[in-house]
Amino acid sequence: MKIQPLGERVLIQPLAAEEKTAGGIIIPNTAKEKPLKGKVVAVGTGLDGKNLTVKVDDVVLYGKYVGTEIELDGTAYLIMLESEILAII
Amino acid sequence: MKIQPLGERVLIQPLAAEEKTAGGIIIPNTAKEKPLKGKVVAVGTGLDGKNLTVKVDDVVLYGKYVGTEIELDGTAYLIMLESEILAII
Amino acid sequence: MKIQPLGERVLIQPLAAEEKTAGGIIIPNTAKEKPLKGKVVAVGTGLDGKNLTVKVDDVVLYGKYVGTEIELDGTAYLIMLESEILAII
Amino acid sequence: MKIQPLGERVLIQPLAAEEKTAGGIIIPNTAKEKPLKGKVVAVGTGLDGKNLTVKVDDVVLYGKYVGTEIELDGTAYLIMLESEILAII
Amino acid sequence: MKIQPLGERVLIQPLAAEEKTAGGIIIPNTAKEKPLKGKVVAVGTGLDGKNLTVKVDDVVLYGKYVGTEIELDGTAYLIMLESEILAII
Amino acid sequence: MKIQPLGERVLIQPLAAEEKTAGGIIIPNTAKEKPLKGKVVAVGTGLDGKNLTVKVDDVVLYGKYVGTEIELDGTAYLIMLESEILAII
Amino acid sequence: MKIQPLGERVLIQPLAAEEKTAGGIIIPNTAKEKPLKGKVVAVGTGLDGKNLTVKVDDVVLYGKYVGTEIELDGTAYLIMLESEILAII
Repeated sequence: MKIQPLGERVLIQPLAAEEKTAGGIIIPNTAKEKPLKGKVVAVGTGLDGKNLTVKVDDVVLYGKYVGTEIELDGTAYLIMLESEILAII
Repeated sequence: MKIQPLGERVLIQPLAAEEKTAGGIIIPNTAKEKPLKGKVVAVGTGLDGKNLTVKVDDVVLYGKYVGTEIELDGTAYLIMLESEILAII
Repeated sequence: MKIQPLGERVLIQPLAAEEKTAGGIIIPNTAKEKPLKGKVVAVGTGLDGKNLTVKVDDVVLYGKYVGTEIELDGTAYLIMLESEILAII
Repeated sequence: MKIQPLGERVLIQPLAAEEKTAGGIIIPNTAKEKPLKGKVVAVGTGLDGKNLTVKVDDVVLYGKYVGTEIELDGTAYLIMLESEILAII
Repeated sequence: MKIQPLGERVLIQPLAAEEKTAGGIIIPNTAKEKPLKGKVVAVGTGLDGKNLTVKVDDVVLYGKYVGTEIELDGTAYLIMLESEILAII
Repeated sequence: MKIQPLGERVLIQPLAAEEKTAGGIIIPNTAKEKPLKGKVVAVGTGLDGKNLTVKVDDVVLYGKYVGTEIELDGTAYLIMLESEILAII
Repeated sequence: MKIQPLGERVLIQPLAAEEKTAGGIIIPNTAKEKPLKGKVVAVGTGLDGKNLTVKVDDVVLYGKYVGTEIELDGTAYLIMLESEILAII
C-alpha cells in the first residue's frame, strides 16, 4: 500500500534512537526538545512547482513533537511538513 | 443533490476505520492526534486558477478534528480545506 | 432598498433548516459547528479586480457563527465574507 | 474645518438608527454584534494608488465597536478603516 | 538639535486639546479611545522609496496611547508610525 | 575585535542619558516607555540588497527594552534590529 | 558523519564562554537574555536560491534559548535558523 503525502508533507519511518554508540547521533539528556532520527519513505509533490529538498531514503532529524502518527501494514510512520525537518544526516 | 465546495475546500465521505486488518491503515492508540480515512466526493475550483491536487474518488487521510460536518441525503460528509488533508493513499 | 456589500462580502438570506426531509441537508446533532443554508442576495465587487465565485440566487452553506445580522424591509439577512462560505449546493 | 483621513480611513457621520420603520434597516435585538448606519463625510486617498470604494455621501453599515470617535464643530464623527465597513446601502 | 525619524516614523509636537471652542475638535467624554491633536515636526524618509503622506506642519489626529515620548530642548514630543495617525485636519 | 551584525541588525554603544541639560534629549519621567540614546558602532549588510539607513557614528534613539546586550573589550553594547530604532539625532 | 541542515538552518558548535579575558566577548551578568558564541560547522542551502550569509568556520553570537541540541560523534551541537544568529565576530 502506497501513501502519497500532499504538498510539502513527508512520510517518515522513525528509526530507533541509538543511545551511546560511537559516531552515532546521541540525544543529550537535557530539558531542551530532543530531535529524533527517521528515514524518508515518501515525499509530497511540493507547492507551486518547487520540489522538496529531501528525497526518499534520506535519513533526517526532526523534533520530538512534530508530525502525525499513522500505521501502515503494521509499521508506524510520521507525516510531517518538510519545514519541520531539521537536517539530513 | 450536488454540493460544490468553494475555493480550496473538499467534500469528503468518511470511511469506517479498519481496526487491525493486514495491510490496512491502523491508527495507533496514542495520545497523538489520529488521522482518519475518507473518500473525496467533490473538490473546489481552487484559488487563483490553481487546481486542487486531490481528485474525486481519492482516498485520503485527515486529522480527527478538521472539517465541518454536513449531512446530505442521509449520509454524513465533511467539508475541509485541502491543506488539512495529510496524504492520498 | 438595495444593499451593496463591500469587497469580498456577501449578503445572504438564511433559509429555514429542513430537519429530516429526504434529499435535504440534515444537520447532524453533534458537538461540531453546524453549517446553515442561505440564499445569496447580493455580492461585493471583490478585491483587486477578482470577482467573487458565488452569484446572486446561489444557495450556500455557512457556519453557525459567521457573519453580521442586519434586517432590511423586515427580513433578516447576514453579511459575511465569501471565504466564510463552505459550499454551493 | 476639514478633516482628511489618512490612507484607507474613512470619516463617517453616524445616523440615528430607525427602530422599526417600514423599509428601513432594523437592527434585530440579538446577542450578535449589531451594525450601525452612517454617512461618509470624507475618505482617505487609499494605499498604493488604489482609491477607496466608498464615496462621500454614501450611506454605509458598520459594526458597533469599530472606529475612533471625534467631535468636529459640535458634531460626533467616527474614523474607521474602509475594510471595517460592511456594505453601502 | 534636529531629529530624523526612521522609516515610516513621524515626530509630533502634541497640541493642547481645546475642550469646547466652536469649530474646534472636541473629544467626546466616552469610554472609547480619544484621539489627540498634534503638529508634525519631522517625518521619516519612508520605506521602499515611498514618501510619507503627512508633511511638516500638518496638524494631525492620533490615538491616546500611540507613540513614544521624548523631550527635546525642553519640549515634549511623540515619535509614532504614520499608520498610527488617524487624519490630517 | 570586530563584530559584523547579521541582516538588519545594528550594533549600538549606549550613551549616558543626560538628565536635564539645555538642548539635550531629556526623557520625561512618565509611565510610558522611555527611549535611550546610543551611537551606531556597526551595521548589518541589510536584506535583499537593501542597505540599512543608519550609518556608523549616527546617534540614535531606541526603546528601553529592545536589543540584546553583549560586552566587547570591556564595553557594553546592544544588538538590535534597525526597525527598532526610533530616530537619528 | 556529516549533517546537512535544511533550508535556512545552520549547525553550530558552541564555544565555551570566556568569562573575563581582555578583548573577549564577556556576557554581562544581567536579567537580559545573554548571547552565546559558537562556530558554524555546516550551513543549509538557503531558500529560493538565496544563499545564507554565514559560512562554515564563522564565529557567531546567538541567543541563549534558540536552536535545537543534537549530539554527533560525542560532541554537542545546535541547529538554528540563520535569522536567529545575532552577529558574526
